Amino acid sequence: MHRYLPVLDWGRRYNRQTLVSDLVAAAIVTIMLIPQSLAYALLAGLPPEVGLYASVLPLAAYAIFGTSTSLAVGPVAVVSLMTAAAVGRIASEGTADYASAAIILAMLSGGMLVAMGAMRLGFLANFLSHPVMAGFITASALIIAISQIGGLLGIPTAGHALPDLLASLWDGLDQFNASTLAVGALALGLLLWIRLDLKNWLLHCGLGKAAANAVVRAGPVAVVGLTMTASALFDLGGRGVALVGQVPQGLPQPSLPTFDLETIRLLIVPALAISVVGFVESISVAQTLAAKRRERIDPDQELIGLGMANAAAAISGGYPVTGGFARSVVNFDAGAATPAAGAFTAVGIAAATLVLTPLLALLPKATLAATIIVAVLSLVDFSVLTRAWSFSKADFAAVVATLFGTLLFGVEPGIGLGVGLSLLIFLLRSSRPHAAVVGRVPGTEHYRNVERHAVETEPSIASLRVDESLYFANARYLEDIVFDLVAKRPEVKDVILMCSAVNAVDLSALESLSAIHRHLADMGVRFHLSEVKGPVMDRLKGTEFLAQMKERVHLSHHQAVQAVSNGAQSLVHDVS
Amino acid sequence: MHRYLPVLDWGRRYNRQTLVSDLVAAAIVTIMLIPQSLAYALLAGLPPEVGLYASVLPLAAYAIFGTSTSLAVGPVAVVSLMTAAAVGRIASEGTADYASAAIILAMLSGGMLVAMGAMRLGFLANFLSHPVMAGFITASALIIAISQIGGLLGIPTAGHALPDLLASLWDGLDQFNASTLAVGALALGLLLWIRLDLKNWLLHCGLGKAAANAVVRAGPVAVVGLTMTASALFDLGGRGVALVGQVPQGLPQPSLPTFDLETIRLLIVPALAISVVGFVESISVAQTLAAKRRERIDPDQELIGLGMANAAAAISGGYPVTGGFARSVVNFDAGAATPAAGAFTAVGIAAATLVLTPLLALLPKATLAATIIVAVLSLVDFSVLTRAWSFSKADFAAVVATLFGTLLFGVEPGIGLGVGLSLLIFLLRSSRPHAAVVGRVPGTEHYRNVERHAVETEPSIASLRVDESLYFANARYLEDIVFDLVAKRPEVKDVILMCSAVNAVDLSALESLSAIHRHLADMGVRFHLSEVKGPVMDRLKGTEFLAQMKERVHLSHHQAVQAVSNGAQSLVHDVS
Repeated sequence: MHRYLPVLDWGRRYNRQTLVSDLVAAAIVTIMLIPQSLAYALLAGLPPEVGLYASVLPLAAYAIFGTSTSLAVGPVAVVSLMTAAAVGRIASEGTADYASAAIILAMLSGGMLVAMGAMRLGFLANFLSHPVMAGFITASALIIAISQIGGLLGIPTAGHALPDLLASLWDGLDQFNASTLAVGALALGLLLWIRLDLKNWLLHCGLGKAAANAVVRAGPVAVVGLTMTASALFDLGGRGVALVGQVPQGLPQPSLPTFDLETIRLLIVPALAISVVGFVESISVAQTLAAKRRERIDPDQELIGLGMANAAAAISGGYPVTGGFARSVVNFDAGAATPAAGAFTAVGIAAATLVLTPLLALLPKATLAATIIVAVLSLVDFSVLTRAWSFSKADFAAVVATLFGTLLFGVEPGIGLGVGLSLLIFLLRSSRPHAAVVGRVPGTEHYRNVERHAVETEPSIASLRVDESLYFANARYLEDIVFDLVAKRPEVKDVILMCSAVNAVDLSALESLSAIHRHLADMGVRFHLSEVKGPVMDRLKGTEFLAQMKERVHLSHHQAVQAVSNGAQSLVHDVS
Repeated sequence: MHRYLPVLDWGRRYNRQTLVSDLVAAAIVTIMLIPQSLAYALLAGLPPEVGLYASVLPLAAYAIFGTSTSLAVGPVAVVSLMTAAAVGRIASEGTADYASAAIILAMLSGGMLVAMGAMRLGFLANFLSHPVMAGFITASALIIAISQIGGLLGIPTAGHALPDLLASLWDGLDQFNASTLAVGALALGLLLWIRLDLKNWLLHCGLGKAAANAVVRAGPVAVVGLTMTASALFDLGGRGVALVGQVPQGLPQPSLPTFDLETIRLLIVPALAISVVGFVESISVAQTLAAKRRERIDPDQELIGLGMANAAAAISGGYPVTGGFARSVVNFDAGAATPAAGAFTAVGIAAATLVLTPLLALLPKATLAATIIVAVLSLVDFSVLTRAWSFSKADFAAVVATLFGTLLFGVEPGIGLGVGLSLLIFLLRSSRPHAAVVGRVPGTEHYRNVERHAVETEPSIASLRVDESLYFANARYLEDIVFDLVAKRPEVKDVILMCSAVNAVDLSALESLSAIHRHLADMGVRFHLSEVKGPVMDRLKGTEFLAQMKERVHLSHHQAVQAVSNGAQSLVHDVS
């Protein structure tokens, strides 16, 4: 019970001090979340109030089921883009079908996350490797930023990959609106100034650090208020500036989404992509923040927490949510002590929704576009390219494939390409493992690569170390290496395979080891093993191969070489 | 030049003795190949003479480009079944489109094999693991045998998987023909007797071993002659027995196949499956036979040899070929000394084609069905199931999936299922690697698993060994293990990761190692590495992570523990 409801644990330890910490953090995150939630909903192709709906119940659900004390759940940029790409394929923006598809997507994603958590499949998210995730986030951020340039210029954009986006920007140039650009540029300039310079300026003016931070965090809300006021004063709507317009007042009644099998079928793959990407993004930031306080988060329970948050989004007219990077850091810095901070944020957003919705009609959409651009630019990080390049060309290839795949073909093909390429590279690498002929480091019992070290060897003994588990993809390669070695050195009478790096042996490898043993015997060469690990020995026990090898399995490589040199036989390796 | 034309090597050493050996082997293989080539062509859904065509030029081509002295190339049962399954999807048996699709399939497969050979991609065939190949061959042999039961009963069968086959047998029961069964049963009985008992009987009668072997090998040809005679004497054709019927006389003129893009598109995947399965079957038998004479075959050149054989099949009206298991063993036993034996076999088959084609009209198809059944029954091997079960459940799952996948859904889905499952199991296993907390074996410098051995540990030091290369699929799992360990043991002040089994580190793992280092530092815990291998150290050099670790990378685990216990610092591991 406690495993699935972490609230039962931290709830008992809740006190006045944690309450104050959580309330302060919630107030700060609420102020930050209001403009972001409106903007991200627009990015997802949904009415702005949907962003507010997605910031109430989901946060409360995560507070009950989540394990991170700092993770701030809600609408985030990348998942909003993925939602737009997925839903845009099956319905037109602005239609009822579009909104209900977004709800179904949240429900599917929630169900998948809860199921993965219940089955403890959180480790599957690991297949989204660091280079793939880094390439994907940067590409998504670029696509988002470029899509919002249209919003700054008053040009409608279409598509969720670079070619379509640029084409629609180009085609729409004649719809450019100077008033929109004016308000958009004002908002963008103010937001950048708030982010980059305001804090230093306030500190310089003698304000305290805490007060300066609070002002900086409230800045975006001030920009929203300022442009709304400008909109009213100068009748920006009448000058062709796109405004948010009338939105329904109050909070939606919780209701179950209506399901449509064909829509579900089309959204299965996007829901999986959103679930995994959202989970990886959340777990990274949650783990980083937890470690700072020597706390632990439970990845499988996090899946359940995020899944319940998405289910809550689905029943309250929202769309897919996850843990946001920037907001979580702010939440942590502001002192959030328990997941209750999220629940208080939910209350804050609910109150704001009731107050704000009448005012939103006047808000220029360009303000929200500027909010998005400033938020996502911090996600663009090309440094991973140089780091990957200098570390390994394989990782570099994965970053580049994901980055360009996402930019050119969209979010799901980009991720698919990156994950597929990463797996392929890994399999290819392990199918041709590093192998070294080893010799004795003079005066020691250590055996090292003859090409790296000055070592002693005996002509009649071939000592070979293979640096990989032996499995089907490299089993026959092992045969090639051994037979090449023996064919090149006809004087060899003994081959000793050093197994210190062999962590596993499968049936194909067992067949290859048997074939090597048999074929070497046909050639009059003896085959030995050394330094076989316990788990591998457990597996080999009871096989015909081990019975044939008998006394030619040696505890250490040195013992093997000595036994062969002396013509003597060392004892069989006993793992007991 | 010599790399791509092995004939230039062995041709220079050719002499009278090798000529005699090759001629004897060729004569024996020719007699064995005549009925098999006719039967396998029928199995592929093609006219029987196509089997003869596929046994002339392809053998000559392999003799020039192949490296095995013993491999007998030509039509084989499993590839014939795969051809029927592939071509049967795009044309009806007996049509000109069917025959030309088979030719295109041979050309595609030839092109793929040559390309793989030129790019040295032979190791890709390793992904067809031993359990998958074993399950596939047994399932294919069962499907082939069951499909030929129709031929013995005079019932036409359809489909290349068990459900369709059994349904068509059931539906066709009313077409059962007693005369067909009589001749089929006679042929089957004789062939089984020849295979199982004839040799012992001949030896018992005082015949020499060589003569007895020769009689046994000529037996199937005698059965063909006997049933042809019976067909003429008793007018079997008039009694409803299916005969081979009129076939074109002589050999076809070499000609380029006509290409059709849509057909090519449909045959790409089957051609790849046929290429890989054919290559794996050939290379296994070629390597086994080569090792017996301490010869080497070059897998990449074998791809080129088999590819050229298929290209030759395509331009001479044949269909896909590969190295056959049984015929290669016979070729080896008969003393084939060079690939020239194959060229002589080609001459023998060409001569037989000119003489035989007029006579074939009278041959009952039931004789060929019996020939196939006897040939494939030796391929059925359920022992792999018990071997896999006792060795590892993962390998067992791969065998079972391939076996039942092939039986139920056909050859390509079966292989796809087996390969996919093998990869998935491998990835899942390496994503949750074996990890052990280790302690010192008293009185030694060895560190072993605390759960397997009686070892000494210090409360403030956590020594952890992970038995797997660190890469994206298990990087975050490593973080989980480390943080769980530290959370459970608050007294821990030092974590030492023993890297003796870590053969590679990718960028994701580097990020995880950095995160572990950083988070542990946040908790006031020091992070150390020990026994980092040369290639891994090469990769880490120049990274920020290694710079931060500095003197906390230790040559041996014992040195690491001593350094930590003494509060001293050992020297950084120097790989030069």
